[in-house]
Amino acid sequence: MTYCIAIKTNSHLVFASDSRTNAGPDNVNTYSKMFCWGIPGQRQFVLLSAGNLATSQSVVEKINRDIKENSEVNLFNVKYLSDAADYIGKLSLEAQNTILQAGMNAGFNAESTFIFGGQIEGDSAEIFMIYPQGNHIVCPQAAPFLQIGEIKYGKPLLDRVIHDNTSESDAIRAAMVSMDSTMRSNSTVGPPIEINSYTINSFKPGGYRVFVEDDAYLRDLRDSWAEKLLGAFAGLPELPSVSNVSRICRNR
Amino acid sequence: MTYCIAIKTNSHLVFASDSRTNAGPDNVNTYSKMFCWGIPGQRQFVLLSAGNLATSQSVVEKINRDIKENSEVNLFNVKYLSDAADYIGKLSLEAQNTILQAGMNAGFNAESTFIFGGQIEGDSAEIFMIYPQGNHIVCPQAAPFLQIGEIKYGKPLLDRVIHDNTSESDAIRAAMVSMDSTMRSNSTVGPPIEINSYTINSFKPGGYRVFVEDDAYLRDLRDSWAEKLLGAFAGLPELPSVSNVSRICRNR
Repeated sequence: MTYCIAIKTNSHLVFASDSRTNAGPDNVNTYSKMFCWGIPGQRQFVLLSAGNLATSQSVVEKINRDIKENSEVNLFNVKYLSDAADYIGKLSLEAQNTILQAGMNAGFNAESTFIFGGQIEGDSAEIFMIYPQGNHIVCPQAAPFLQIGEIKYGKPLLDRVIHDNTSESDAIRAAMVSMDSTMRSNSTVGPPIEINSYTINSFKPGGYRVFVEDDAYLRDLRDSWAEKLLGAFAGLPELPSVSNVSRICRNR
Repeated sequence: MTYCIAIKTNSHLVFASDSRTNAGPDNVNTYSKMFCWGIPGQRQFVLLSAGNLATSQSVVEKINRDIKENSEVNLFNVKYLSDAADYIGKLSLEAQNTILQAGMNAGFNAESTFIFGGQIEGDSAEIFMIYPQGNHIVCPQAAPFLQIGEIKYGKPLLDRVIHDNTSESDAIRAAMVSMDSTMRSNSTVGPPIEINSYTINSFKPGGYRVFVEDDAYLRDLRDSWAEKLLGAFAGLPELPSVSNVSRICRNR
């Protein structure tokens, strides 16, 4: 499994990814799911991947090759960010179709889902979810974040914390707490956690942080959050008294 | 969809359920998913249901009929709590098989999953998850709670808060915050929220509370939690400075 998040605030694009892959419960490995490209001063991109690892790797390799060979369409020459998203969607479909034409079992799934974001000079910054079908959507305005992979455990926290005007530091820490809660509830999501925070209109590579399993800050954040969560509990309003029970209980 | 929780502490069994049912996004309704039976001084039971509503209702009706007709096996004469769980599993299988033998479409799903708990005099209190296949499990010792339905959104909170020695009030409020977070993230889980808290060894019906959509306490709890969660954020440790970015970014 995988858990990746992208957050779009007024000032930053924050990307977060875990690093655990598994092909069955007894085939667990560690791969980065975060990839970046850019031309300082002109354009910056970040890609996060979930799903079939071979499909994801094939897409990333093709992106690199197309840049190297200066292909007609590549990340360093597309005019608009959404064209770049379309291009990645096309690479993903091609990778899936190559595998599927080989005639796999009915149960085999070659699909990958991507989060792609960044900014090209003259265009606004954006984050996209790129579906296995190759099409894409932007994030909702009211809840400006996207998630792929094991998204449910960590969503309620993001729903409450993330807004347009969330600070960079809060967005990163929200992503990390959301990630940590998910790791706690699902053993197929795991460290290192990678964070890339792009400052909108900077056109410089985003600030990069990585947190391994026994990272001191990650442990601090986890302990601090657990303690504050229990503290928040202690301060919740007192329960009202019980109602009449007879209407739901059938007692002899 | 549905979200139901049962928590087993040293002193109480706490049951919580939402009340929204949906057969497709345009066929939404309100049904209680909490059912109780008991003989004061001797035995008390609570049942929570998720899945096919017709199957769940058929099981509840059969439980009531068997009590009324004093059948050979019914909730008022079984000797052990796990026998009661087996009996409910059997009723569930029978209800599913009756429907399936009618020759439904391949996509049709008659399955229901139940949480069942309570106590019979001379036996310890327990909570069970009863699978659609009719078999059952108890809750894990380290995390003494069970969930059915839309379980992921509300699990991280329970993972952090619920232990053997959690107080009744904290267990109920944890269940309610877990439920409220789930309602916020998934529109197919909705109020009224019903809470039943059985005091172990009391053999009296559990304390019952119900919270409708605009309930003043539920609103208080929701606002208070949102505020405290944001407060907890403000107090998290400061982020470490950024690492060297060059190793993940391909810049021209």
